[in-house]
Amino acid sequence: MDTTALGTVFLSETVGTAMLILLGGGVVANVVLAKTKGFDGGWLLINVGWALAVFGGVTVSYASGAHLNPAVTIGLIAAGTEEFVPGVPVSVVSVAVYIGAQMIGAIIGAVLVFLAYKKHFDETADQGAKLGVFSTGPGIRSYGWNLVTEIIGTFVLVFAVVGFGRVGDPDLSTPAGMAALGAIPVAFIVLAIGASLGGPTGYAINPARDLGPRIAHAILPIRGKGTSDWSYSWVPVVGPLIGGALAGWSSTLLLPIML
Amino acid sequence: MDTTALGTVFLSETVGTAMLILLGGGVVANVVLAKTKGFDGGWLLINVGWALAVFGGVTVSYASGAHLNPAVTIGLIAAGTEEFVPGVPVSVVSVAVYIGAQMIGAIIGAVLVFLAYKKHFDETADQGAKLGVFSTGPGIRSYGWNLVTEIIGTFVLVFAVVGFGRVGDPDLSTPAGMAALGAIPVAFIVLAIGASLGGPTGYAINPARDLGPRIAHAILPIRGKGTSDWSYSWVPVVGPLIGGALAGWSSTLLLPIML
Amino acid sequence: MDTTALGTVFLSETVGTAMLILLGGGVVANVVLAKTKGFDGGWLLINVGWALAVFGGVTVSYASGAHLNPAVTIGLIAAGTEEFVPGVPVSVVSVAVYIGAQMIGAIIGAVLVFLAYKKHFDETADQGAKLGVFSTGPGIRSYGWNLVTEIIGTFVLVFAVVGFGRVGDPDLSTPAGMAALGAIPVAFIVLAIGASLGGPTGYAINPARDLGPRIAHAILPIRGKGTSDWSYSWVPVVGPLIGGALAGWSSTLLLPIML
Amino acid sequence: MDTTALGTVFLSETVGTAMLILLGGGVVANVVLAKTKGFDGGWLLINVGWALAVFGGVTVSYASGAHLNPAVTIGLIAAGTEEFVPGVPVSVVSVAVYIGAQMIGAIIGAVLVFLAYKKHFDETADQGAKLGVFSTGPGIRSYGWNLVTEIIGTFVLVFAVVGFGRVGDPDLSTPAGMAALGAIPVAFIVLAIGASLGGPTGYAINPARDLGPRIAHAILPIRGKGTSDWSYSWVPVVGPLIGGALAGWSSTLLLPIML
Repeated sequence: MDTTALGTVFLSETVGTAMLILLGGGVVANVVLAKTKGFDGGWLLINVGWALAVFGGVTVSYASGAHLNPAVTIGLIAAGTEEFVPGVPVSVVSVAVYIGAQMIGAIIGAVLVFLAYKKHFDETADQGAKLGVFSTGPGIRSYGWNLVTEIIGTFVLVFAVVGFGRVGDPDLSTPAGMAALGAIPVAFIVLAIGASLGGPTGYAINPARDLGPRIAHAILPIRGKGTSDWSYSWVPVVGPLIGGALAGWSSTLLLPIML
Repeated sequence: MDTTALGTVFLSETVGTAMLILLGGGVVANVVLAKTKGFDGGWLLINVGWALAVFGGVTVSYASGAHLNPAVTIGLIAAGTEEFVPGVPVSVVSVAVYIGAQMIGAIIGAVLVFLAYKKHFDETADQGAKLGVFSTGPGIRSYGWNLVTEIIGTFVLVFAVVGFGRVGDPDLSTPAGMAALGAIPVAFIVLAIGASLGGPTGYAINPARDLGPRIAHAILPIRGKGTSDWSYSWVPVVGPLIGGALAGWSSTLLLPIML
Repeated sequence: MDTTALGTVFLSETVGTAMLILLGGGVVANVVLAKTKGFDGGWLLINVGWALAVFGGVTVSYASGAHLNPAVTIGLIAAGTEEFVPGVPVSVVSVAVYIGAQMIGAIIGAVLVFLAYKKHFDETADQGAKLGVFSTGPGIRSYGWNLVTEIIGTFVLVFAVVGFGRVGDPDLSTPAGMAALGAIPVAFIVLAIGASLGGPTGYAINPARDLGPRIAHAILPIRGKGTSDWSYSWVPVVGPLIGGALAGWSSTLLLPIML
Repeated sequence: MDTTALGTVFLSETVGTAMLILLGGGVVANVVLAKTKGFDGGWLLINVGWALAVFGGVTVSYASGAHLNPAVTIGLIAAGTEEFVPGVPVSVVSVAVYIGAQMIGAIIGAVLVFLAYKKHFDETADQGAKLGVFSTGPGIRSYGWNLVTEIIGTFVLVFAVVGFGRVGDPDLSTPAGMAALGAIPVAFIVLAIGASLGGPTGYAINPARDLGPRIAHAILPIRGKGTSDWSYSWVPVVGPLIGGALAGWSSTLLLPIML
């Protein structure tokens, strides 16, 4: 175990996930809080914001492979990954570092959103809107079907991410190599999931993205806030973990022969 | 005939087309079904969703050349293709494998959309909206003119795809080589067709994309569903096949001297 | 003078400009004609459609350098270009071939839009909307100021295009080299011009794009059509030619030292 | 000190910032002034316009490293930059040339927006809308919190830009190398900031972008204009400078170990 490498992973995942949640929570704040420039800006604006939040997060966390999401970490393990990055083998410790950093980063990001939109939280009456800046909630509450939606959405994300990663050192003379480059393809997949599979549950597709900010919502002194809706909180944790694991495992059956 | 290569083609086209329809049908569900986050999200949202559905499908089906569409398969034949991918020459069998896999993948994708949006199908009264998640229908019903629109739209798609493919091993030092790389250019062309030529018929431009989900619509236990509109169903099959063949044939006249 | 190369230029510019106008006119038809899927879809949808129309046109006309626009041809001359593509030096004949092909292609593209949206033209009462599918018109009619707007918009287009082209064989290890690759940067610039400078006049920024379709509008048997507004027609011809020439000339002062 | 290189920097930053403000101010004009094509076009249209304004500005100012923003210049110094571009070391003179050129370019760009939209300024009654084409203003006036928002937004911009720049001669075989290429990643980050952090203050995130056009607003003969809101004018200057410096300084702690 290379502790310097592990420290790099911790810092990289923390910074990257904080960037992810700052930009992702920010676009929801812009659309739902009172008196913002982007108020009522529509679903596509939210989708674009979240996609570029992933772009921003990935561009500052290459050192750790830019998981930013426990479902990706779990999916890579299910796909048979032996080393997350050079010097960081898969182990209970390294997984704990990844997921711990993601949770801490997510909470930091949520606090920054609160600060950036402080006055707009103050002037917004709708408690559901305020919670929506932090965490997802379903259009129609149905734990079973909400879980199905989160599983499918996360499957798409992790299946694509594992596929991109499998290309390894990308060969620039092939389309697959080019498609694997940079943060843009991942941002496109997240835009696709938001537009296409975000309708029922608001696409958490990431336990840290949902649980970290929900903790921040519970703790922060948000004026006139309501419940943090803990009864729903397990769905965007369990669904993405199942979807990610399924995608990683499926990729061992479906992807190797395809690339 | 290399049966392993043919098996790879089958799996690749099935997975790719399932991804295409899951994300493509999904964005329509998000925009037209009741109580979704993206309800009434507009045509651009639908266009972006379908474009990225193609992006998602192409990124997981490079092994088969990512046709995902019988009109592309037919277009490549009309363009004089001899081998779809190494080890898979054009033949009755290989064409049947491509198109069969596309149809099966399309049905799988439609079933996944149904599962992801199950509760929203239950709460939507409009039978036309429910069918619209699966298959296209015209703004003004006129079989002849609807056919013309589908032919023109598919011509643009296949003409561009054949052009990208003709670059072969892309030469990164030329613009044409770069333009041919990855799934992004194809996604851009599909976004263009949706925005510009999708107005009259909803741009099927792919027989599998329309017929496969229509079969799923007929079979699935969708609460309160209406007709599957079989009287229109031949238009988005025949139009794209004609458009694809015309584009492939035209490309032999127009594209070789241009690249 | 290489007549084969000149023939390639003619075919390439005709096909490319037809693609440009088919997709560009198409998105306007989708937004303004009755009973389309994209009716009232907004300015961003129009901007995206036109940007990708340029993307589509450029990707099929690399052989001629993808001018697709007399203002680009004129701008390249003003920038001191000696040869448009290998074997095609700048001359009265080659310029006539470029501009003639652009005009013919634009008319073909406009006819294709008419065919794709035939029934929707029939069902639209608004004569201005029908003309708008073909040609631009100002928000506030003021020939002088409309001309200024078209000059500024075309300046931005041609200045950027000349800048991209000046990179020559792009060096992939530099940002400027990458920025010059493919049709995507040009599409982005056109999206920028539409969003930012299209407000007053609808951004013709291309004499062939405006005059070719206007001729088509005058000739085609469009049910219930109105005037082709010939009194305004000189603005989107003269403005872009001035803007393109200014940009080409300015680039010789401003761009060489910058790249 | 290489005065030719310094002259190139001056020209490059002036041209680039003029392009930035022409396209960025232009999209606001299109959305808020009367009788434009894009009137009331929404926040996403404004975000896209500003993102591509940055794209356009960066593509014509590579010679100076495309700062276009005093906060970037300051951030690079805080990050320990010794030479802005070859032959131009960090010094009081070179910093003055950068910032002076950015201010002059911003004023030129604002004048061009005024000319392009002259008639629409004439026909717009709302004084706030007219100022909004030039400079930002907060949704809820609160100097302290507005400052916080501008600091956070600029931090994201400069942190990402420094990260991109740190890659140096980009290595095309790595994702980080690819992500650093061209103007597209910077445009994506600006789109992200606009969508996600632009809600409270309209995202100046650039002292020259706000102050230069505000000076132009004060000087230009805009029919029926109101106040230039000088009382707020220090916020979008001081906030971005603080955010940029913090980002540059943070990057020395957080980024080196990550790339």
